[in-house]
Amino acid sequence: MKFEDKMKLLSETVNVALDRYIVEKETPEKIIYQAIKYSIMAGGKRLRPVLALAVCEMLEGNVADVLPYACAIEMIHTYSLIHDDLPAMDNDDYRRGRLTSHKIYGEAIAILAGDALLNYSFEIMLSDIASGNNNQVDILRKVNAMKLIANSAGTNGMIGGQVVDLQSEEKQISSETLEYIHRCKTGALIKAPIMAAATICKADEKVLKALEKYAENIGLAFQVKDDILDVEGNSQKMGKKAGSDADNNKATFVTLYGLEKSKEMLKNITEEAVRSIEFFGEKSEFLIELCEYLLKRDH
Amino acid sequence: MKFEDKMKLLSETVNVALDRYIVEKETPEKIIYQAIKYSIMAGGKRLRPVLALAVCEMLEGNVADVLPYACAIEMIHTYSLIHDDLPAMDNDDYRRGRLTSHKIYGEAIAILAGDALLNYSFEIMLSDIASGNNNQVDILRKVNAMKLIANSAGTNGMIGGQVVDLQSEEKQISSETLEYIHRCKTGALIKAPIMAAATICKADEKVLKALEKYAENIGLAFQVKDDILDVEGNSQKMGKKAGSDADNNKATFVTLYGLEKSKEMLKNITEEAVRSIEFFGEKSEFLIELCEYLLKRDH
Repeated sequence: MKFEDKMKLLSETVNVALDRYIVEKETPEKIIYQAIKYSIMAGGKRLRPVLALAVCEMLEGNVADVLPYACAIEMIHTYSLIHDDLPAMDNDDYRRGRLTSHKIYGEAIAILAGDALLNYSFEIMLSDIASGNNNQVDILRKVNAMKLIANSAGTNGMIGGQVVDLQSEEKQISSETLEYIHRCKTGALIKAPIMAAATICKADEKVLKALEKYAENIGLAFQVKDDILDVEGNSQKMGKKAGSDADNNKATFVTLYGLEKSKEMLKNITEEAVRSIEFFGEKSEFLIELCEYLLKRDH
Repeated sequence: MKFEDKMKLLSETVNVALDRYIVEKETPEKIIYQAIKYSIMAGGKRLRPVLALAVCEMLEGNVADVLPYACAIEMIHTYSLIHDDLPAMDNDDYRRGRLTSHKIYGEAIAILAGDALLNYSFEIMLSDIASGNNNQVDILRKVNAMKLIANSAGTNGMIGGQVVDLQSEEKQISSETLEYIHRCKTGALIKAPIMAAATICKADEKVLKALEKYAENIGLAFQVKDDILDVEGNSQKMGKKAGSDADNNKATFVTLYGLEKSKEMLKNITEEAVRSIEFFGEKSEFLIELCEYLLKRDH
């Protein structure tokens, strides 16, 4: 299957599952379901859950086993965007070309929609584990996958990165701090779907190590590319204003290393990611093409 | 043991465990641990985790098995207070006589501290399940307890209640809506520790039913008492302004039923709670005295 078709197939699988998970109930708290749905169905690349499903396929696992965890990670990602966009944080009115949650539903509901999505991500993982469809070994593997996801989302991962990012605003920061921020803020939640899927699909130590290297490199590559796009990108395609990092005096790979050096880094990191999973042979085709796709994306 | 001594012993057990769980790491995101610690160690009655431990003792379970879940619920309760106090929500400057999180750390960190506490509650439950100290039956029971806690905290529980409460501000609401709000907003997270502890401690159907009735009644009693205190209470003892519900045009049991009728309701509901667990004999002594304590509390 062609890369684009495969990408579409996997992201559609995620979209259908997410749409089914979030039901707009006709209960008094209806508006919270509308707010959740508005943000979760806003599109986007579905990169994180697609990574989980792609790893599952490469390891010849069962997609149905991984899907709840893939969707849970997308919910966590979405909650973090809703909260990041709040006036007290980045104060963004637009995301992916649409008004942000708090601009539509008000700040209070936006805060609660974020809270609800984080909570819901655990509810769906726990429903899957408690469903009675798992044997004891499956249960333990899924508990470990969920633990890994929880750790990636918390103070040792995404939230920690966001805190350091907030505290670094308008400050000169070192390249170590910049890497720390990105390893936690975006890297952790790109690594999580890969490692969670590998855990559920019974990966052995060697496979886990290789996938960890792949995950860490594409996580970093993703951020370097984002920083490059903020300088070179087209605002319309990105659905947000290009040059916003510079406007906000934000330290980025480009401000620290310059544009040319950043592009070289991006190329090297991407090659490193590819190398780490080449031994899977043709089964790794999609995950390798995904690296190329992330390298070349224009939004 | 006298009720007051037992209450103190159980809440101290919780305090020590919470203090150990939240370590102020010397990492770049240090401030988030300080903010979490500031709110979680602010005191309070520890009603929810104490309920879990008391149920565990009544059922002759192992306190160490229940403690992580009891603490997780207190973390969820604390996160909800931090977010409720935000300017976009209730806009409270004080809680339990101390400045609220956003007044000390700013709104952005307060939002993230709430997010982190919710996330952390799942991290500690998952650490317990994945610790290797559990047999397969224990694991499944603990997964079910965690699921029950997650459901109580989400859109079908606490968050749902908060949404309806927000939407009911400055409105005339029916007694059905008021009960719906409280059953979800406060009731769900009072019921959760009782039912989670019972699940972990191998309660049978009859015991679960009795405890459910106890839990629902004390949850409601707790809220009716809160509404009465808002009219009759002493601001200093409560650590917040008495009469704030009336100032905010908030519908309460007192505004709907009047003070005398509310007091009568409180007495009846409390008696109902006591009756539902009397068959445990002297083992239920503490949980019965706890009803009396909640009935008579002045803050």
